Amino acid sequence: MGRERVLVATWGNPFQWRPIRYRVECDRLGLENCRDVEMKNMSTLPVLIEALKPDRAIILALDTLANIRIRRGDSTYEPDLEAKELSDYAEVRKDVEERVRWFIEERVKPLVKSEEVERELDRVEILVGPGLGEFDNASVSGDMLDFYGFTLFELSQRLPGGDAEVFLDLTHGINFMPVLAYRALKNLLGLSAYINEVSFHVLNSEPYPQGSPEWAREAVKKSVLHMRLVESSPVRPKPLYSLIPEKPEWSAFISSVTNGFPLAFVTFYPKIDEVRNEIKGRYSEFLDSIEVKMSEDEMGVRKVYIRRNSNLSEDFRTEIKLFYLLRVLNQKFRGYPKREATLDEMFEITRLLFRKMPRIGAVTCRQLEEMKAFERGETVYGEHGPYHRKGLIDRLSRGKYWGALGEIAREVSSKKGAPYSRAQDLVRMKASSGGGINKNVCLRNFIAHSGFEFNITHVRYDKTEGKVYWFYGDRELLMKLCIGALETRLDRLEELEKC
Amino acid sequence: MGRERVLVATWGNPFQWRPIRYRVECDRLGLENCRDVEMKNMSTLPVLIEALKPDRAIILALDTLANIRIRRGDSTYEPDLEAKELSDYAEVRKDVEERVRWFIEERVKPLVKSEEVERELDRVEILVGPGLGEFDNASVSGDMLDFYGFTLFELSQRLPGGDAEVFLDLTHGINFMPVLAYRALKNLLGLSAYINEVSFHVLNSEPYPQGSPEWAREAVKKSVLHMRLVESSPVRPKPLYSLIPEKPEWSAFISSVTNGFPLAFVTFYPKIDEVRNEIKGRYSEFLDSIEVKMSEDEMGVRKVYIRRNSNLSEDFRTEIKLFYLLRVLNQKFRGYPKREATLDEMFEITRLLFRKMPRIGAVTCRQLEEMKAFERGETVYGEHGPYHRKGLIDRLSRGKYWGALGEIAREVSSKKGAPYSRAQDLVRMKASSGGGINKNVCLRNFIAHSGFEFNITHVRYDKTEGKVYWFYGDRELLMKLCIGALETRLDRLEELEKC
Repeated sequence: MGRERVLVATWGNPFQWRPIRYRVECDRLGLENCRDVEMKNMSTLPVLIEALKPDRAIILALDTLANIRIRRGDSTYEPDLEAKELSDYAEVRKDVEERVRWFIEERVKPLVKSEEVERELDRVEILVGPGLGEFDNASVSGDMLDFYGFTLFELSQRLPGGDAEVFLDLTHGINFMPVLAYRALKNLLGLSAYINEVSFHVLNSEPYPQGSPEWAREAVKKSVLHMRLVESSPVRPKPLYSLIPEKPEWSAFISSVTNGFPLAFVTFYPKIDEVRNEIKGRYSEFLDSIEVKMSEDEMGVRKVYIRRNSNLSEDFRTEIKLFYLLRVLNQKFRGYPKREATLDEMFEITRLLFRKMPRIGAVTCRQLEEMKAFERGETVYGEHGPYHRKGLIDRLSRGKYWGALGEIAREVSSKKGAPYSRAQDLVRMKASSGGGINKNVCLRNFIAHSGFEFNITHVRYDKTEGKVYWFYGDRELLMKLCIGALETRLDRLEELEKC
Repeated sequence: MGRERVLVATWGNPFQWRPIRYRVECDRLGLENCRDVEMKNMSTLPVLIEALKPDRAIILALDTLANIRIRRGDSTYEPDLEAKELSDYAEVRKDVEERVRWFIEERVKPLVKSEEVERELDRVEILVGPGLGEFDNASVSGDMLDFYGFTLFELSQRLPGGDAEVFLDLTHGINFMPVLAYRALKNLLGLSAYINEVSFHVLNSEPYPQGSPEWAREAVKKSVLHMRLVESSPVRPKPLYSLIPEKPEWSAFISSVTNGFPLAFVTFYPKIDEVRNEIKGRYSEFLDSIEVKMSEDEMGVRKVYIRRNSNLSEDFRTEIKLFYLLRVLNQKFRGYPKREATLDEMFEITRLLFRKMPRIGAVTCRQLEEMKAFERGETVYGEHGPYHRKGLIDRLSRGKYWGALGEIAREVSSKKGAPYSRAQDLVRMKASSGGGINKNVCLRNFIAHSGFEFNITHVRYDKTEGKVYWFYGDRELLMKLCIGALETRLDRLEELEKC
């Protein structure tokens, strides 16, 4: 099996590149499953493909390459493809892909000796994204951050859902491309890292030699540019902190993962198809809003004008991250959302989801353990010595089959019976309040108790199965609490609430 | 007051730049305290200085510019400074600074109309860092990541310790510079954001127009390149997850911040001077290891050879982050480290340090509240109705003035008295274990209880002050637990320990 290996490369304008010797030295880079390679080429791509044998290679290119051709001699152009009359954005993307494909075919492949690498080059995916700027072939206007949204969108569908090793080659990126591609990968892989083993390696070749024209001509012949690591590390889980205002249930789910609320996780787990449809819809709208027309510019040069009339919003970007998170989680979690869950099920979720986050995992496990003791009963050291405090099962199996923790505890406490005082610990109870159970639902307690707030956490005893199921009473309120946990600061919480 | 504003710009080779109109439109960028500016210049620097009026502006440049001069005409060069016989790295840095300063003086300033901006340009700091590559003026070899260490080191001393607004201009950065400067700022500002309001804006101008020479000549005259945002957001706290193997106490402190262990925070708070001396020492060693010599290359061109024989290690980078974290924390925290602390003091630390992290803050506050109840006593609902469970103070004020929580609880529980059964809750106690107190210190409990593990947490009652002080018994063990909390995964914890 092993990890799936993906190579992503940002490409500016390949028609400006010149051949030089590139070299990968695996030991020096500390890379395993890697082959030392030295190859003269216009691009680092075949070198990295031969050295790393990625399962998948992706080029991120820009729409500003539409119709590009650069004069080389009196009547020769590169690429050797005519400019087209482009009339919509699909044509623009297709045109750029063709030009980049031409470059690979005519400029990269001829310098490659291995047939295997040639075959792999045919399989490289070329993704054409939103650029920006004035060129003699194209004029592109829109939000610079659209490239970030584009990269997130395309990679969220292509990055592995399981263990992964991802390489980002920044050598040929220009302008805003490297930082935005880096940021997109950093964010997506940080989600995968919740449950997968993921490593991220950022590569850059040594700089192209520069100097006087005579010197440079010689230097390029003699130089070998080594591939270097700009970053290389196992990826840690990177929680999402953004909300999706239009989709409170999705926001509540995000909070359940970020904060460790296992029962909210079970309750709000989104259906991936709904998220996929939402982002695909939004992305189509974005593409549809892009105006494309051919026209002469002020200098009388006919070119393609590409104008983005909308942009890929922050909410869209959060939805994409959620989509990728679900692609990842769906590898391990089945059958969600559900209305209720047993403690054992929630233990399993916690252990899996927070295996790399001991602080949040240990706190949540401890909470579940307290609930387990409450469910089954436990030995307690009271004023008059140890006694067995009965559990929820003892009680629920004799008549009442379900209820909110708060109600059960109230009922019991009014009888001065002891077994359920633990119910108060479970959630919150100021000793100083004189023993009355505070009916106000308090966000701080909700957070501190991993989502098991006294008033809204319910239990049901299934007599046939002999099992206790936990569920929430008030879904709307739960949603608000989850969202509050993500957007409210601790100091504000304490100002607002007296718990 | 307001936030301190810092502008950082990555500069590749300025002698390749040409004048063009740059424009800042504040509304479009969503920036406040900003002035719309349009200015023809070789660089975005004066434009941004005029628009943003930063309190501090910093250029990150590369040592590969040493001795650079580019032929412009038959006998004119840019900069108009002779190449020098450079013999050590201090001279290299000084030379590059002079050349960049020449560029600002002779190429940037003449296009500036405002005297205020001119004055600000004189104040710009030029930091010369480790580059890489073969050029006709210089040949530089070493680790590409040294630029990252350099940026962290220099910025850790210059970024504000309080509220801040930081702008990173990537327009003129080349190769590995933008991503590494971005990464350095992202990490440092994420530490400041624990207790400060920090915003981070990454800027990039629209791309320089490109096309056939005739077209480009005209286009450059007509174009206005707008400054755009590549990222713009309030910065969230970004915990440190790396350790410093040679300095276990510093690692333990890092863990106390990352995981929310207030008493370990008090105990291990490092002295900033020690950290400063350590990183300054390491940095000097690094600089001293850089060999500089003048020699002819294969093409017979005399140039400076710069060879880094050591690199800025990962531990060094962690120490720099720790140093900056302390610079920030020292704005609010005084008098640490200390051997012991009251609960009130720990409440304050928790509220301040985790004000933007409600999950960790609420859990830690709840823990402290339980300890408060344990300290003072509380009303409890036992089998035979409510009663006042005595607190630590009741007990400690009558004879025994200090002890480990574990001992106190054991002593009491052997007498079948109830007041201290809460001590067990404080830390960990499996009801199923039959009431015996497990003497094994368990990392998972240490984590789940915000560092207040039963066996190692001690209390002392100060009769004169009438206050309870909390402290740790076994400093070595505490250190191991803190470090374990940062490096051990939850699944491994559960495998290793049966708590």
